[in-house]
Amino acid sequence: MTAPVWLNGAVVPAAAARIDPADRGFTLGDGVFETIAVRGGTPCRLEAHLARLARGMALLGLTCPWPIEAAISDLLASAAMRDGVLRLTLSRGVAARGLWPATMDRPTLLLTLAPPAAATSQARLVLCRGTRRNQNSPLCQIKSLNYLDNVLARAEAAASGADDAIVCNTRGAIAGASAANLIIEHQGRWLTPRLRDGALPGTVRQCLLAAGLIAEATMWPKTLHAASAMMLTNSLGITQACRFEGRALATRDDFRRRLLAVAE
Amino acid sequence: MTAPVWLNGAVVPAAAARIDPADRGFTLGDGVFETIAVRGGTPCRLEAHLARLARGMALLGLTCPWPIEAAISDLLASAAMRDGVLRLTLSRGVAARGLWPATMDRPTLLLTLAPPAAATSQARLVLCRGTRRNQNSPLCQIKSLNYLDNVLARAEAAASGADDAIVCNTRGAIAGASAANLIIEHQGRWLTPRLRDGALPGTVRQCLLAAGLIAEATMWPKTLHAASAMMLTNSLGITQACRFEGRALATRDDFRRRLLAVAE
Repeated sequence: MTAPVWLNGAVVPAAAARIDPADRGFTLGDGVFETIAVRGGTPCRLEAHLARLARGMALLGLTCPWPIEAAISDLLASAAMRDGVLRLTLSRGVAARGLWPATMDRPTLLLTLAPPAAATSQARLVLCRGTRRNQNSPLCQIKSLNYLDNVLARAEAAASGADDAIVCNTRGAIAGASAANLIIEHQGRWLTPRLRDGALPGTVRQCLLAAGLIAEATMWPKTLHAASAMMLTNSLGITQACRFEGRALATRDDFRRRLLAVAE
Repeated sequence: MTAPVWLNGAVVPAAAARIDPADRGFTLGDGVFETIAVRGGTPCRLEAHLARLARGMALLGLTCPWPIEAAISDLLASAAMRDGVLRLTLSRGVAARGLWPATMDRPTLLLTLAPPAAATSQARLVLCRGTRRNQNSPLCQIKSLNYLDNVLARAEAAASGADDAIVCNTRGAIAGASAANLIIEHQGRWLTPRLRDGALPGTVRQCLLAAGLIAEATMWPKTLHAASAMMLTNSLGITQACRFEGRALATRDDFRRRLLAVAE
């Protein structure tokens, strides 16, 4: 990480930024984050990201002692990067051991910038066997620092030569990809898993739903086996899937362009 | 934290120990930990803790570049503390952004010492309403850094004036307390939730099962409502519960002493 970072009130070189070993973000995954595309110096869909962040903070009872939009502006002004990926991490900060100690310090707010994500033109997808998403936990509705089930899913995909794995919830319904929402073309309609099935409320997903381009549905592995095309959407882009479980999928360039026009 | 810590090969003052902001333990909860009681300068049940740590490392595909037992000895020799709580945290270390980047650095190994946990004589328990444990994820069988569902459960307990909350799994069966195994006296037998129901394989739980003092059972909220006594067991002790959902429970001092004798 060569770009400067914003940490707890100041822009500092990445090499000088220190997370305390007792930070509950590190010890317990106690915090939330957002990943935001930056294009031409401007964070994309910032309002939607900040709204989701606020919902995560409310669920966890987290406050932020700094104005977040000003922190983002400060970092972007300090960095030479006009296009890239901004990550905002807010943890509960340093505390004594234990799940809920009597006193806790101020939260930790970290903003980092990374180069633009390499565009994946066509993703090979598999069905995740190793783990399930817990649609019964409120955590699946926020972007918490507890991302290890998704890491396991992605590692499973990599081990089988695929780019991503589609994760089921504990009932066996489809929840989404490891770090993206799934949309599928099924019997002529474009569908995406429901929030109550464990889908993350993605900012691009929300745009596409609001525009009437996709609809929510409960889907199962058999629904995916009957799908003609699939795409993955997240803050950083919309990627077509070329294969699911080894079966070739159709490409839908025109539809993808329509989605991008709405999401941008 | 005033005691020194052991970080990536060296004992350093806590104030000088730096976790990199790009450490996957901080950004994704990508790692494992153990909490180990230290009595008279000796870590308790170390073999069982290291065995569980090894299972967690195998699941996550984590390696450790340092001999862990030597690191523990180094830290204990450097610290003035003869009795306390040793926490070992192993994360996947610093990496570029993304769930599974092509290259990842060496893992991060951190050992910290804290004063002995304050003994809770009698715990008031409630049933957790806000979240569920995901018995379908392999993560519930290891001590991963994804502890936020447990944090939510504990915060819920605190908000209702209780000391801990008993968490159900996604099927509604009892999994355990937020950071302890649950044992209950039910119709004259002492029972503990099964691993397949989401119970953590606790080191004390394992001792008590091996000694035949408790037995595994699938239990439901109604089982708890019919229990005459309850205790919580974890690495740091065995605590009697005085109330469950406001109902008074019996104290079983003699049985607790038998358990402690086996677990020590």
